[in-house]
Amino acid sequence: MNYVYQFALPPEITLGHYLLHRLRQLGVHTIFGLPGEFNMPLLDQIYTIPQMVWAGNTNELNAAYAADGYSRIKRLGCLVTTFGVGELSAVNGVAGSFAEHVGLVHVVGMPPLSAQVKQLLLHHTLGNGDFKVFNRLGSDVADYTTVLNDVDTATEEIDKSLRIAFTRQRPVYVGIPLNMINTVVSSSLLNTPLDLRPALRNEEVENEFIDKVLSAIYKSENPAIIADACVSRHGLVEEMQQLVELTKFPVFCTPMGKGSVDEQHPRFGGTFLGSISSPQVREVVDFSDFILVVGALLSDFSTSSFHFAYRTKNTVLLFSNHAKLKNASYPDLELKVALKVLLSKLDPSRIRYRPQEFSDVLKPKLHLMNNVPLRQEWIWSQLTSWFNPGDIVITETGTSAFGINQSKFPSRTRCISQALWGSVGYSVGACLGASFAAREEGSNPRVILFVGDGALQLTVQEISTMIRWGLKPIIFLMNNGGYTIDRLLHKKSNAGYQDIQSWDNLKILPTFGASYYDTRKVRTVGDFLALISDPGFAINDKIKMVEVVLPPMDAPPALMEKWLLEDKPVRLLESPANESPAEGPTAKRARLDGQFGIDYDDMDGNVNSVQ
Amino acid sequence: MNYVYQFALPPEITLGHYLLHRLRQLGVHTIFGLPGEFNMPLLDQIYTIPQMVWAGNTNELNAAYAADGYSRIKRLGCLVTTFGVGELSAVNGVAGSFAEHVGLVHVVGMPPLSAQVKQLLLHHTLGNGDFKVFNRLGSDVADYTTVLNDVDTATEEIDKSLRIAFTRQRPVYVGIPLNMINTVVSSSLLNTPLDLRPALRNEEVENEFIDKVLSAIYKSENPAIIADACVSRHGLVEEMQQLVELTKFPVFCTPMGKGSVDEQHPRFGGTFLGSISSPQVREVVDFSDFILVVGALLSDFSTSSFHFAYRTKNTVLLFSNHAKLKNASYPDLELKVALKVLLSKLDPSRIRYRPQEFSDVLKPKLHLMNNVPLRQEWIWSQLTSWFNPGDIVITETGTSAFGINQSKFPSRTRCISQALWGSVGYSVGACLGASFAAREEGSNPRVILFVGDGALQLTVQEISTMIRWGLKPIIFLMNNGGYTIDRLLHKKSNAGYQDIQSWDNLKILPTFGASYYDTRKVRTVGDFLALISDPGFAINDKIKMVEVVLPPMDAPPALMEKWLLEDKPVRLLESPANESPAEGPTAKRARLDGQFGIDYDDMDGNVNSVQ
Repeated sequence: MNYVYQFALPPEITLGHYLLHRLRQLGVHTIFGLPGEFNMPLLDQIYTIPQMVWAGNTNELNAAYAADGYSRIKRLGCLVTTFGVGELSAVNGVAGSFAEHVGLVHVVGMPPLSAQVKQLLLHHTLGNGDFKVFNRLGSDVADYTTVLNDVDTATEEIDKSLRIAFTRQRPVYVGIPLNMINTVVSSSLLNTPLDLRPALRNEEVENEFIDKVLSAIYKSENPAIIADACVSRHGLVEEMQQLVELTKFPVFCTPMGKGSVDEQHPRFGGTFLGSISSPQVREVVDFSDFILVVGALLSDFSTSSFHFAYRTKNTVLLFSNHAKLKNASYPDLELKVALKVLLSKLDPSRIRYRPQEFSDVLKPKLHLMNNVPLRQEWIWSQLTSWFNPGDIVITETGTSAFGINQSKFPSRTRCISQALWGSVGYSVGACLGASFAAREEGSNPRVILFVGDGALQLTVQEISTMIRWGLKPIIFLMNNGGYTIDRLLHKKSNAGYQDIQSWDNLKILPTFGASYYDTRKVRTVGDFLALISDPGFAINDKIKMVEVVLPPMDAPPALMEKWLLEDKPVRLLESPANESPAEGPTAKRARLDGQFGIDYDDMDGNVNSVQ
Repeated sequence: MNYVYQFALPPEITLGHYLLHRLRQLGVHTIFGLPGEFNMPLLDQIYTIPQMVWAGNTNELNAAYAADGYSRIKRLGCLVTTFGVGELSAVNGVAGSFAEHVGLVHVVGMPPLSAQVKQLLLHHTLGNGDFKVFNRLGSDVADYTTVLNDVDTATEEIDKSLRIAFTRQRPVYVGIPLNMINTVVSSSLLNTPLDLRPALRNEEVENEFIDKVLSAIYKSENPAIIADACVSRHGLVEEMQQLVELTKFPVFCTPMGKGSVDEQHPRFGGTFLGSISSPQVREVVDFSDFILVVGALLSDFSTSSFHFAYRTKNTVLLFSNHAKLKNASYPDLELKVALKVLLSKLDPSRIRYRPQEFSDVLKPKLHLMNNVPLRQEWIWSQLTSWFNPGDIVITETGTSAFGINQSKFPSRTRCISQALWGSVGYSVGACLGASFAAREEGSNPRVILFVGDGALQLTVQEISTMIRWGLKPIIFLMNNGGYTIDRLLHKKSNAGYQDIQSWDNLKILPTFGASYYDTRKVRTVGDFLALISDPGFAINDKIKMVEVVLPPMDAPPALMEKWLLEDKPVRLLESPANESPAEGPTAKRARLDGQFGIDYDDMDGNVNSVQ
C-alpha cells in the first residue's frame, strides 16, 4: 500500500473526489457496484482518478461479494450502491463481511437533503416518508454508520469511516446525499496519510496478558497453535510464521484460517476441523495441554461444533480486538499488538517443549483406475500437486469448502471461503473481486474457483463481468446435480427441493459474450489426470471452465463420514456431558466420531465462552 | 378463491401443515423460495399438500420478486427463506411489496429456540449472538412481524398474519423456529374460513365522507376519475367499472393503475402521466374541477412529479385504508368500504355533468418503411393490436414501463410493473410468479414480459426456473445496449458505467436447458410487422424470446421529450411558485412542457399532502 501520494491535488476538490482519493491511498483501485439515480455523479468522478476502475457489476449482491473478495486480498474493498433498492439488494453481502471481519466501505448515494426533509414520496422509498429506514438496516451490519450531510465535518467523517473499516476489518456505511457529491472541500487532509495505527494502547494490560501467555508457552509439553480467519484479515501471516519458527510448536489452521500458515513448513500439522479432523490432527490437538488460537473467529463450521469450546481451561484466544486466557477476558487488546508484543518478549531458550515429528496430514492418495468415475475424496488430494505458490483459491460454501481441506497448499497460497456466514453463491462474486486484486499485483497469480452447480445458479451472471474485463480465473464447476451439501445435512438424498434445473454449463461463457476461453468436461479419473497434467491448462492465459461431473451423493471424506455415521438428527455441537475426563483417548475418539454434528435439542451454554 | 375446504384433516396436524393449509385456503398454490438448513422440514411438508407446488427459485431476491408477481394476480403470495443469508437476500424484494402494497407472507425458517437462547456462534449469524437482528431488519418492511415460538398461540398468530397480509395487501414476516415446524397443533381453526372482512367499521364516518364526495360528484361540470395501483391490489376492478358506468365520468389510469380500468370503454381517456401526459389527457385532467383518485398510491413516477399535488383542493383520494377529501383526512376508512358505500348511495339522476366525446388518446400510428430500424415510439402503438383480452403484461422499470403507456389494452388485460419501488430486474422474477398464477387460472392466459438488456442481467437466471416448470411466457428483450433509462435521466449518453457486457441473448434459453422454445431477433419495422402478424408466434405454446434491437438512445416519446427538452438538472417536481392561477391553459402547458422532471433544489412541501 502506498501512503505517499504521487500526484499533487488542487487545494479544493469535490467531496466525491476526496472519498475516492482516500480509498486510492489505501490501495483500493477497483470500485464495485451498480449505477443508480442517486450515485451517478460519484461514478463520473471515478473515471477521473488515475489507476481507479469502476467494475460495474451485474447486480448489487454480486457486487458486495466481489468487494468482499477483493478486500480479502487487499485488506479493503469498496461497494457503491444507490439508495433503497441498491443498498437493500447488497445487505446480505455486507452482512457476510461483517460476520467474517472483512474491511468494506459501503458508499450509498442518497436523495438530496431537501427531499429527505420534505419526506417526498420518492420512488425507491417505502412510501411512508421514512428516509432513515435503509440507513437503519445498514447500521445493523456495519461497525460505523455516517451520512455526509455536513460539509464542515464530511472529510473527517470519511477519514474516520475508512480508518474503522481498515483497522477493525469490518464494513462501514457511508451515505452521501446527491447534492453533496460535488460539494467543494479542502484536499489538505489528503497530504497526510490516514493514521492506521492501533487505537490507544494500554501497556500494563498488554504486559500482564503476554507474560501469562509466555509462562504457559514455556511450561507446555504438548502445545498446539491454531491459525484462524483474522490472521490474514489483519495481514499478520508473516508474524504468524515467526511465531512458529520461534516456538517450533505444531501449527494448524482452521478452514477459515487456511492460507494463513505455510503448509509446507515442517511444523505444519494440518487443518483442524474439530471432531471431524483427521486422526493425525486430533492426536495432537485433542490431547494438547496448551492451545494458542491466533486470529480467532470461531464458528461451528470452522471448529465443527465448537469442539474445544469446553477446553478453554487450556486455551489462549487472540481475537481481532480482544483476547482470552483461560477464563479471563482482555478487552481492547488488538491482535496485531498482542502478536507483536508476544514476539518481542518470547525467549525460545525457556521453552520446555521439544519438537516431535508427526506424520503427513494427508492420507496416502487412493490409486484408482482411469475408467473409474470421479470422487471428491480422490480429486482434492490430487489437486495438491497442481496448486502453485501464490495461487488464490476460492471455494464455495458446500462440498468444496470441506474438500479443500484435503489439499495441502504450496507456500504463499491464499484461500477464500465464507465458512461462518455461508451465503451460497458467494464464491462467484468473490472470484471476480479476487481476480481484480490479482491483476493489480502484477505477478499475475492464478485465481482458481471451485463452485457447485447449485451454488453457481444464484450468482452466475457475475461471470459476465469477468469476461467483460478480460479476467482469467480458472473455474472448476463441481456438478453433482443439486444441493448436495443440503442433501447431506438434511439426511434426505431425494428431496425434490434439492434438485435444480440442469444447465448446459459449458455454454455459459459464450452466452455471456466470451470469445477467447477454454471449456472442458471431465468424468473419470483418466480425464482428470489428463487435465491436471496438461501444462496448457495450468496457465491462466484466458478464462477457463471445467465441468467436473460427480455423483449426486458424492462428497469429501469428512462430510461423507458425517453423513454415513449419523444415526440421529443432525447435531449442532457436542454436549460436555459426554466429556468425561477419565475417558481414554481411544474410547473418546470412538465416541466423538459417533457424535459430531448438530443437535438442536441438546446444547451447551459454555460455548458462550468462545465469543 | 375457495373458502370451503375440500378435504378433511385429522384433528391434529403439524404447525407447518397448519400454515400451508391456511395459505392453500387463500388460493396460494405455489410457494417461492430456496431451501436452507432451517426451513427444510417445512419444505418437506409442502410436497404433502394437494395442489401445492414448491417453485424452487435460483436465488432469494428473484424468489421475492416472483412471490410479488404471483400476488399481483392472486392477491396473496408466499416466500420461504432461511434465517440470515436467505431472508437478507430477499429483503429488497419484500421492501418492494411493502412500498407497492402487495400481499406477501414471508416465512423464515429460524434456528431452534434453544440455540437462540444460548446465543451460539452459529453460521448464518453475525457472530455477535444477536439472533433478533434479521427479524428487526424484516420488521421495517413488514406490516406485521411474528415469531412462532409459543405453541399455544402459534395458529392464531398464523391466522392474524395471513389476514393482515391479505386485507392490507402488505408483507408480513412469519418466523418459524426449526423445532416448531413439526410441533403438533389442532387443525380445528382450519374448518372455519379466515375472516377477511374489513376491520371494524364506523358508519358515521363513512356516511359523512361519502355524502361530501357525492355532493362534489353531483355538482362537478368537468370531472375526472383516475384509477391508481390499489384498485387491482384489492380486487376492485369490477366496482371501478360500475363507478364509471354510473357517473359516465371520463376515467384515466396511472401507470401503476394500468389494467384496472377497461381501456376499451368509451369513457376511458387514457393514461395520466402528470405533466408528461398526452395533450388529450392533460386537456381533461389539468382543467377538471373535480378529480376522484381511486386506489391512490401516488408516486413521482405515476404522477410525474406529483403533478396534482397542489391541486388537492379539487381532489378526493381513496387510499387503501384511509381517504382524503380536499384537505380533510379520514383515517381507517378502507378503500373497499368507501367504494362500496359510494356505489350504493350514488344517484346518477343528480349528476350535472353531461358526457362529452374525447379523442382517442393514442396518437395516430407512424407509418414507416419496412427497412427502417425499430423505434420504441412505433413499437408500443403497434403492440396495441397484438395484445389479447386476459393477457398478463409485465414491464421492467426503465423504458418499457414508460412505453407500455403508449399501448391501449383490450378488456381484462392485466399489467404488472414496479413504478414506485423501481427495482431493476424485478420484472423477470415477477414474470415467473405471474406465469405460475396464469397456469393456475386454467384459461391459460398469455404472460408477456418486456425487459431491457441491462435489467435482464440482474436476474437472468430466473428464466431457468420458467424452463424447469415448462412455463411459457413470451419475452421481448428490448436490447438498446445498456442502461438507457439512466442515460436519459442522468443526461449523459456516453458514461462508461451505463454500458454492459454484450451477451449472446438468444443462447440464454438453451444454456438454461430449454429444449422446446422459440427465439427470434427483429431489427426493422418489416421484421416486427412480420413477427406480430405471425399467428404461430402469438400462441403461448412454448417459452419464447424475441430480441428487439434498438438504438442506445431510443426511448418512448414521453421519455424522449423529457430528455430532449430538458435544459437543466433533472427535476423531481414542479414548483407551485410556477403555478399562477391567472395563467391560461396554452401558456401553462407550454411552460409545464419545459419544466417537468426533477429538481432537487426546488421543492414543494405541499406534496406531503398526497401521502
